[in-house]
Order: sequence, then C-alpha cells, then structure tokens
Amino acid sequence: MKALVTGGSGFVGRHLKDYLVSMGDDATLLDPTVDIANEEALSRAMDSLPSGSIETIYHLAALANVGESFGSSHEVFRVNVMGTLNLLEAARRVFPGARIIIVSSSEVYGRVSPNLLPVDEDSPLAPLSPYAASKAAAEQVAMQAFRAYGQRVIIARPFNHIGPGQSDSYVVSALAKRVLLAQRGGIGSIRVGNLESRRDFTDVRDVVRAYRQMAEVGVAGKVYNVCSGQSVSISWLAGRIIRLAGAEVVLERDPRLARDVEVSDIYGDSSRCRSELLWKPAISIEESLKDVLEWWSIHLEAD
Amino acid sequence: MKALVTGGSGFVGRHLKDYLVSMGDDATLLDPTVDIANEEALSRAMDSLPSGSIETIYHLAALANVGESFGSSHEVFRVNVMGTLNLLEAARRVFPGARIIIVSSSEVYGRVSPNLLPVDEDSPLAPLSPYAASKAAAEQVAMQAFRAYGQRVIIARPFNHIGPGQSDSYVVSALAKRVLLAQRGGIGSIRVGNLESRRDFTDVRDVVRAYRQMAEVGVAGKVYNVCSGQSVSISWLAGRIIRLAGAEVVLERDPRLARDVEVSDIYGDSSRCRSELLWKPAISIEESLKDVLEWWSIHLEAD
Repeated sequence: MKALVTGGSGFVGRHLKDYLVSMGDDATLLDPTVDIANEEALSRAMDSLPSGSIETIYHLAALANVGESFGSSHEVFRVNVMGTLNLLEAARRVFPGARIIIVSSSEVYGRVSPNLLPVDEDSPLAPLSPYAASKAAAEQVAMQAFRAYGQRVIIARPFNHIGPGQSDSYVVSALAKRVLLAQRGGIGSIRVGNLESRRDFTDVRDVVRAYRQMAEVGVAGKVYNVCSGQSVSISWLAGRIIRLAGAEVVLERDPRLARDVEVSDIYGDSSRCRSELLWKPAISIEESLKDVLEWWSIHLEAD
Repeated sequence: MKALVTGGSGFVGRHLKDYLVSMGDDATLLDPTVDIANEEALSRAMDSLPSGSIETIYHLAALANVGESFGSSHEVFRVNVMGTLNLLEAARRVFPGARIIIVSSSEVYGRVSPNLLPVDEDSPLAPLSPYAASKAAAEQVAMQAFRAYGQRVIIARPFNHIGPGQSDSYVVSALAKRVLLAQRGGIGSIRVGNLESRRDFTDVRDVVRAYRQMAEVGVAGKVYNVCSGQSVSISWLAGRIIRLAGAEVVLERDPRLARDVEVSDIYGDSSRCRSELLWKPAISIEESLKDVLEWWSIHLEAD
C-alpha cells in the first residue's frame, strides 16, 4: 500500500511510519516544513509527489496540545481546520481515489456525564477546548468532502495515547520523566496537578495499527473510536510508574497545575473498531509504561 | 438595548438594523470594510467601539452563497469560521458580558430523510456544501466559547429567507426579477433549474424579529431553528410570483441550472422558537412575494 503521512515527524507519525514500513507499505512523509494551512504551499508539495501513486493518506498533522490551545486558538484553527480543508482539496485533485484517514480526537466529546459512558461514535460533540473545537470543525470539513465529492474519508477519534517518544507535555510521559529525574536527583517528591482525572489510554503502537486497519477495511464516511474501552486514573498510572521505576517518590498535589476546563472521567466504546476492523489493543498499560520509562532513561542519559 | 451588528450591510443585516432601530435599540454596525477573518483588524475595530457599551452582538457577517462556496471553500472558511473565532475572542475581551447571536444556517442539517422531517435542533449535522460545513464548524467554535468561557452565545439556524432587497443569487428573488424582466420584455418563458425542491421559507423581517427575541429571552448555549415549520416547492412559489405579477410567462426546466448537491425537501421544527421565544412568523408568503416583486419593480426602473 502506497501511503502518504502528514505530521509524520510527530510522536504518532513516527510510530505510524515505523509500523507501515514493518508491514511492507511504501510510506511517504509530507515534508514537515510545509505549512499545511498555506493552500499554495501544500498544493505544491502534493503536486511534487509521483502522480497517482498514493492510495492512502494518513492526516496526522495538527497542533495537538489541548492546554496550549487556549492561548493560541487562531493558530490551532488555522493548522487543524484550514489545513484539513487544504489537504482534502489537494488530495481531490492529485489523488482523487485515495482513502483518507482523518485523525480527530476523543476531545470532541467534551465532558460526558457518567451515566452516558462509554461514549460511542454517535455521542454528541461538545468540545471544551479550542483544540477540541478545531477537531470537531475539521470533522465537518472531512464529512462534507465525503458527502459532496465522494472522497473516501474515514474519521479516527483516538482517546489518550501513551508510548515511548511522547513529549513531556503529555501527562504520562511527563510523570515518567519526572519520576526518573527525581530518582536520579535523590528528590523525594514531585508536584502534580489533578490526579483524579480518569482517561482511556491506548499504546501509540496499537493506535497506529488501528489507523492502518481503518485504511484497509474501514468504511468511508464513518467514524471510529480508537480506545481501550476503560479508563484509569492518573494517580493509578503515577503509582505504576513509580513502582516500575523502583523509585521512592511521593506525589504532592498542586491545584495550580490543574487545567481550567477539565473532564473528570471519559472512556470510549471500542466495539466498532473491534467488530468492524477486527482490532483490539495488544499492548498492556504495564508494558507501555515500561517502554516509556526505558525511552526516558535512554534520553535522559543522552542529555 | 445597545447592539452591535456584523454583516450589517447585507440583506439580513439591513433588515435587522431597521428593526432594531424601530424597537428603540441603539444599533451600531461593524464597519463593513473590516475583514473579520483578520484577527488584528477585527480587534482594532472592536476596540474602537465605546468600551462596555455593547449588550448584544448579532454576528451576521459571512459568505453566504451556498452554490458559490463549492468554488471558494478556503475563503468561505476563512470568513465564516476564523471570522467567528475572531469575533468571539474580541468580544470576550471588550464586551465580556454581551449576549452573542451567532447566525448559523439550516444548511448544516444537509439532506434529511423524509421520515425525519421536520428537523429539530437536535438533529444530526450533515453539511453538504462548504458553506454548510463552515457554519457547522462555526457552531463548534461558538459552543466551545460558551462551555469554556461562559460567553453568552446563542445559535440561530434560520431556514430559507425571502424578502425585499435580497440578492438575485437566491432563487425566489431571482424568479421575481426574471418574471418582471420577461413581462417587460414581452418574453414568454424563462429557464429555471430544479423546480421540485421544497424549502421552508420565512420572511426576512420575521427572521430578524426572532434574532432580537433570542437576544431578549433566549437561553445561552442553546440552538434555535428559525423557520415556518412547513415547506413549499419552488414551482409553487414561481407560480405565485407569476400570478401576483400578472405576467404571462412559462417556466422551462433546464437541468444544467440545477445544483450538483441538492436537498429535495427540508422543513424545520419551529416549536422551540414558538414556545421559548414566543415568536412565530407574522408575514405570509403571499405578502413576502408581493413585497419582493414591488422591490424589484422599483429597482428595475431605477436601472
């Protein structure tokens, strides 16, 4: 399968590329210096690819930091919404038959009342952050292209990712890094934000498998939750990290580190992915955390 | 009530301004030369208004032509989505307590299967045109601002408008103009597109009454359909126009004039507006058509 990956230099993109290559796919990364929100620049970049060669496009390029999006909504919309619009238009011209996996986010569901969990793909969208709103908006762009032009768009709504190589602006990766740093520095405690939030975590390597499976057998115009189907609390994860690292570190709660607009618990209904894509997560949280710790221990040593 | 109107120089904007003035409101129009998609330009324009003076913002500024949006989606998204984002951000800074009526469109519902008519406000969004997708996206922007920042946003989803002064890029206005032109020119027939489409029409003067009522008693974070609750076919309207004009004109169908992506019948459930806003349309279609014909007969003479 000849694939184009946007956002291929990001955390998920790197794992996706590795996986596609391991499966024998021919994966091209869109030049990461191309500003996808710039219609002409993206057009030129797409035109420069061998014509008719791309069967699948994985659209991962996005500004993905939820917290930061509150201070940069204009840029977030520019990249995530206008970028998706530009990508679909260029693809329609250059690779009209391509399947296009549009990576959205479970953030589009917003705060879901406990009695409505797990959230399935038909749950109402109620974005809380500019990031979430931009993803909900990009979904509208993508679905319109499917309805009006028959573009073979499939929307992925991944829940939280974990895995080696993730930036420390994400909670699990940050905790792993800070636990290791505390351990090495002989520091007995680290300050953390809201530990009671519960999230549905999937290893990034399982997530990218789901994306390829979507491209293989997913139905155009459909949305797929990518998730484990259950949530765990950040405090539980932090405890596992400390234990796996063999560290003696205490967590100190600091309310100033908690996000303004916070979802207390969310987990997805993964049955569509399981039944239609025959996909399920293969990597346990324990394994993920071990790999995250190992990744940080290598990268902290390199510093 | 001190009000700011964006898009005040457009068809609906002019009627809204007239109505607000007639009700004794103090209506300020945003300078129509300001590019609302330009964050800085809009910010400057909002800053130049007397601080704290605006209680209600009617956000009408948009690129509103459905057919043309297929060829200009980038610009449509820039104005309709980025423009709404910019407006909400500027309003949050300059007029944080203002009620903000975000004018969306019934186009966001797309093609609705006949057994699901009338469409109420909880119907799924399924935009067919770039215009519709931009409005669905702008709603996400607006609702996020309500959820995260408590901005007093209310979303209006008007169905089709008719009324004096509407551009001839809209079907009813175009028919009225062409019937009058044919009548004057002694031409016995005019070519038309798909006559069997059915739409839910409301006179623009009723629509703007609904907007003010929303600002007065509407609930923040809520969506209101603005519609009559029933649909009529374009061919029926064309017949009424010909009869009211006293013209002897035959309609000739030309499939080339039909839109690519067409919704055959749609009408809205207006009960929320009726029960919560105590609003209902006051102007009959017959009266609207008379006024449209009169408007054109004056404006054709002036040519």
